[in-house]
Amino acid sequence: MSTIKDVAKLAKVSVGTVSRYINGYKIKDENRIKIEEAINQLDFKLNPIARGLRTNKTFTIGVLIPRISDIFCTQVIEGIEEVLNPLNYSIIVCSANDNFEQQAEKMKYLQNKCVDGIIVMPVTSTELYGKEVVESGIPVVLIDRLVKDCELDAVISDNVNGAYSAVEMIIKKGHRKIGIIAGPQDIYTAKERLTGYLRALNDYHIEVNENYIEYSQYTKNGGIDAFNRLMSLEDRPTAIFTTNYPITVNSMKVMMEKGLRMGEDISLCGYDQTELFQMFNPPVSVVVQPTREIGIHAAEILLKRINGDYSRFPYIQRLKTHLISTDSVKTLF
Amino acid sequence: MSTIKDVAKLAKVSVGTVSRYINGYKIKDENRIKIEEAINQLDFKLNPIARGLRTNKTFTIGVLIPRISDIFCTQVIEGIEEVLNPLNYSIIVCSANDNFEQQAEKMKYLQNKCVDGIIVMPVTSTELYGKEVVESGIPVVLIDRLVKDCELDAVISDNVNGAYSAVEMIIKKGHRKIGIIAGPQDIYTAKERLTGYLRALNDYHIEVNENYIEYSQYTKNGGIDAFNRLMSLEDRPTAIFTTNYPITVNSMKVMMEKGLRMGEDISLCGYDQTELFQMFNPPVSVVVQPTREIGIHAAEILLKRINGDYSRFPYIQRLKTHLISTDSVKTLF
Repeated sequence: MSTIKDVAKLAKVSVGTVSRYINGYKIKDENRIKIEEAINQLDFKLNPIARGLRTNKTFTIGVLIPRISDIFCTQVIEGIEEVLNPLNYSIIVCSANDNFEQQAEKMKYLQNKCVDGIIVMPVTSTELYGKEVVESGIPVVLIDRLVKDCELDAVISDNVNGAYSAVEMIIKKGHRKIGIIAGPQDIYTAKERLTGYLRALNDYHIEVNENYIEYSQYTKNGGIDAFNRLMSLEDRPTAIFTTNYPITVNSMKVMMEKGLRMGEDISLCGYDQTELFQMFNPPVSVVVQPTREIGIHAAEILLKRINGDYSRFPYIQRLKTHLISTDSVKTLF
Repeated sequence: MSTIKDVAKLAKVSVGTVSRYINGYKIKDENRIKIEEAINQLDFKLNPIARGLRTNKTFTIGVLIPRISDIFCTQVIEGIEEVLNPLNYSIIVCSANDNFEQQAEKMKYLQNKCVDGIIVMPVTSTELYGKEVVESGIPVVLIDRLVKDCELDAVISDNVNGAYSAVEMIIKKGHRKIGIIAGPQDIYTAKERLTGYLRALNDYHIEVNENYIEYSQYTKNGGIDAFNRLMSLEDRPTAIFTTNYPITVNSMKVMMEKGLRMGEDISLCGYDQTELFQMFNPPVSVVVQPTREIGIHAAEILLKRINGDYSRFPYIQRLKTHLISTDSVKTLF
């Protein structure tokens, strides 16, 4: 079965142009003819359900996230609600339970429930599970994670520079033995944060010690084993960079259990902000992602697409992080 | 238009029996005859959509909560997922945005989306907005909050005794000037927690000081003004009981800003647990609700009803809280 991507390729126009044509918006005659020829040649058939919903708006948006209990996702949804609630859109939230098959099923499910568009935080970056749904013409915006070979609008944060700024701060406070607990490398953000770490070490001419690089799942109990492994090294790091919220919290828990004082016995810089982190003594150094803004921008792009405006498609918006630098990373000189 | 409640009343059987009849389950002949007579007499018509979905299960459950960003709701959903995910049910989550009209709309919306059942945390306890949906025969289970005159299964926590245990602990540590930041009194849980506070003071023969009772909305910024008012009293309380998560966090924030040390300058006992509260120094005293269990039990009752088992309807399950008592409440003698 051919897809709108095949039509675009054959017609030598962008996917956005094909989408606009399919959804009944005015396009240049020249492009219309090329698209119609391609459609005939490929015997391309548009999913009638998808077609129906574009003309009969339901004012419902689907949000598909890896886990409902994830604090990052919850904060992003607040931003999405901020844009969509005043416009009387309903939001329905589904979880893929960190499972790529469920991601594909839930995409299909949302499509069948006739949502006007879908915002997805993909469970993995190797492939977009649920691609058929996208190809049926329903607007889909990715958040947080890009997916390989996937031409879609996306709102992400600048993970490389976020991680770089954290590691640079640690270096500038005099640390040379810097550990990292990185996430699974099939996840876009996790890969980028490790890149930021390596780039900072390289720029400051610090040799990479493979023992200082640990990996952990991005799950609720992530980081515990990895932190313990780093602590049991003979020549252990003086500072550790933990690359998401659960890893940061769990590392702090292990520190407490071991009686290690944060910022004294071991320095820590985490990722993702919660209102409580800055109420600790010392407050916790963290890379803060613009979660609310990610939600706001994703909702805005999605609305634009729903309304047939496919200008600048696919539009990748990369938002800046900021760093909170505190005494949880000790100054060594 | 008559409802299944009217049918039950006229037939002198329970709503559960009428529901079983409607959904095609075997009931006593005697009851069947009474129900059929009542249905004819009232010219009762069942919503065909609701009927359709009971025979064509969609394996989808709707969860309607006041706010998606509420930590209590998120924890309850984890429990719901624990039961429903292994059974291949999909969960769709909607927010009522703390608005009773939106609650009614979203109930209707979920019904139209053909969910097999709905778990609702009502925005207010004065009336069940979205009653028509319940009366159409679709199984609905309430969580956290009961609603006046509403015959529905519900899983709640024991708020009176939860609050009582907190205030009793504060009294036993020698405090007599005990403030409370209570929630809006049209919310069931908020009312019950104030009752627990008053009951404990009464049992220990401590006179109620009206100045020590403050109210706050159960919103994200709740508690800030109320805490400031308590602190500005000439004869201010030595301990404060904060009755939900945001009020607890915001009170801690104000304390920090004012340079008041928790457990030294002012004692605090909060409500609802987060993994981070016990990592503070001192850890925070809190009433811990069995959030995960609330979700698990709600999902289990709902499944029972979906499968036509209406025994013990309506079943109100009240789960025990537990108290974490720490040095955030100072021992005065």
